[in-house]
Amino acid sequence: MKRSKPLILVTNDDGISAPGLRALIAVMAEIGEVIVVAPDNPQSAMGHAITINNTLYLNKISNEKDIITEYSCTGTPVDCVKMAVSEILKKKPDLCVSGVNHGSNSSINVIYSGTMSAAVEAGIEGIPAIGFSLLDSEWNADFDTIKSFVRKITLEVLEKSLPEGVVLNVNFPKLKKEDIKGIKICRQAKALWMEKFDKRKTPQGRDYYWLTGEFVNQDHGEDTDIWALENGYISVVPVQFDLTAHHTMQNLNTWNWNE
Amino acid sequence: MKRSKPLILVTNDDGISAPGLRALIAVMAEIGEVIVVAPDNPQSAMGHAITINNTLYLNKISNEKDIITEYSCTGTPVDCVKMAVSEILKKKPDLCVSGVNHGSNSSINVIYSGTMSAAVEAGIEGIPAIGFSLLDSEWNADFDTIKSFVRKITLEVLEKSLPEGVVLNVNFPKLKKEDIKGIKICRQAKALWMEKFDKRKTPQGRDYYWLTGEFVNQDHGEDTDIWALENGYISVVPVQFDLTAHHTMQNLNTWNWNE
Repeated sequence: MKRSKPLILVTNDDGISAPGLRALIAVMAEIGEVIVVAPDNPQSAMGHAITINNTLYLNKISNEKDIITEYSCTGTPVDCVKMAVSEILKKKPDLCVSGVNHGSNSSINVIYSGTMSAAVEAGIEGIPAIGFSLLDSEWNADFDTIKSFVRKITLEVLEKSLPEGVVLNVNFPKLKKEDIKGIKICRQAKALWMEKFDKRKTPQGRDYYWLTGEFVNQDHGEDTDIWALENGYISVVPVQFDLTAHHTMQNLNTWNWNE
Repeated sequence: MKRSKPLILVTNDDGISAPGLRALIAVMAEIGEVIVVAPDNPQSAMGHAITINNTLYLNKISNEKDIITEYSCTGTPVDCVKMAVSEILKKKPDLCVSGVNHGSNSSINVIYSGTMSAAVEAGIEGIPAIGFSLLDSEWNADFDTIKSFVRKITLEVLEKSLPEGVVLNVNFPKLKKEDIKGIKICRQAKALWMEKFDKRKTPQGRDYYWLTGEFVNQDHGEDTDIWALENGYISVVPVQFDLTAHHTMQNLNTWNWNE
């Protein structure tokens, strides 16, 4: 008896035409039945935003002859997952993959990332999910190099099943294939963006700002995603969406809340 | 020797004119020196979004005679915190409070919430932070009732100091003061929004969607925020921004990543 192909939802935050998405679709098409629902415009750094004060549009991009069905959506990456599950797919997908992001989502970037928020949204809805990112922000970054690793990680997740309440945050170093040392399970490095605003004046003389920042890694551990990436490894961080700091509850219970 | 007043940054996601923000400012003005930097427009459900593809404007609202300095910002709640820290404040604030949100941020709502993302951003930057939310979405909700509890919780945090890497997610039930049973430390309930899209047609006949949803609580634990709120308590959930699912790393290390 032939086992049916897994149904795979593909999304991203760089938008429907991004080369990173195209590479991800190519790999997934070899593994399962693929549906693409991605933002019609770049949605980087949108975090877990959803669209509640505006309307949403869904545009079918592919035509009847295409093997893969593709939609673009006017919303955020999280909106894309919600629309796919609720309005497009007839059944819950077996997997949701997001990316491949053009740029790093290691460390604290996981919180700002639209790519990872799409994966987290899928996880919340009980769909196994992986976010993929390459440490190269260029539009024409080399995604061919990482395809075999994307395939390997995806097959492993489909075979083993992820622990409940967990999605994977996978980041690839910008290296030649022969220089990649392997895949490493890591924790999220403790780091932050020190913001620097670029203050300018409009032609009318009004001040405005561009948000920029400097990434500061405060974590010297050798079990972090940043360490792995800097040392030639692909980092895989298991990410949870129960944000409770369980380890602090006992301490907080000793405070005088109700005196 | 008189101890100097703590410097308190106040923000929200419902916008600079929201009554919930006004109530929070009133309480904080009794405790410390207050600076307000809040979005000029409602930014609910913006999650941890930041503005990188657009310009930001900052508008000073208060005048010289006002005791409290207020700014509105064209960005997201997280942008507000970043602008406050980088462009407005001369020193790191002693506390950041966000809210009081008009509506619940208990359970999984913490992930979508602009209110909580502002608090989390402050936490990432090493500023003790609390997000406050009232389970009443009305613009004219009764915030007077909860003021004494907001004060109590704030003073406790200033006195005891939060554990590193943790901010508080505080939700208030919609009850009369005498019916509130007390403050309870809780974990985030396992729940989700089952999306329902309201599909309509534009006057030109094109389909469009409004995102709506039904909240589904899958968690029957009596140690959750939802249980506390339903049983007359104020819920306090310690929230962390290290998203690593540390408890799953041993299991994931047994997978065949590098064979």
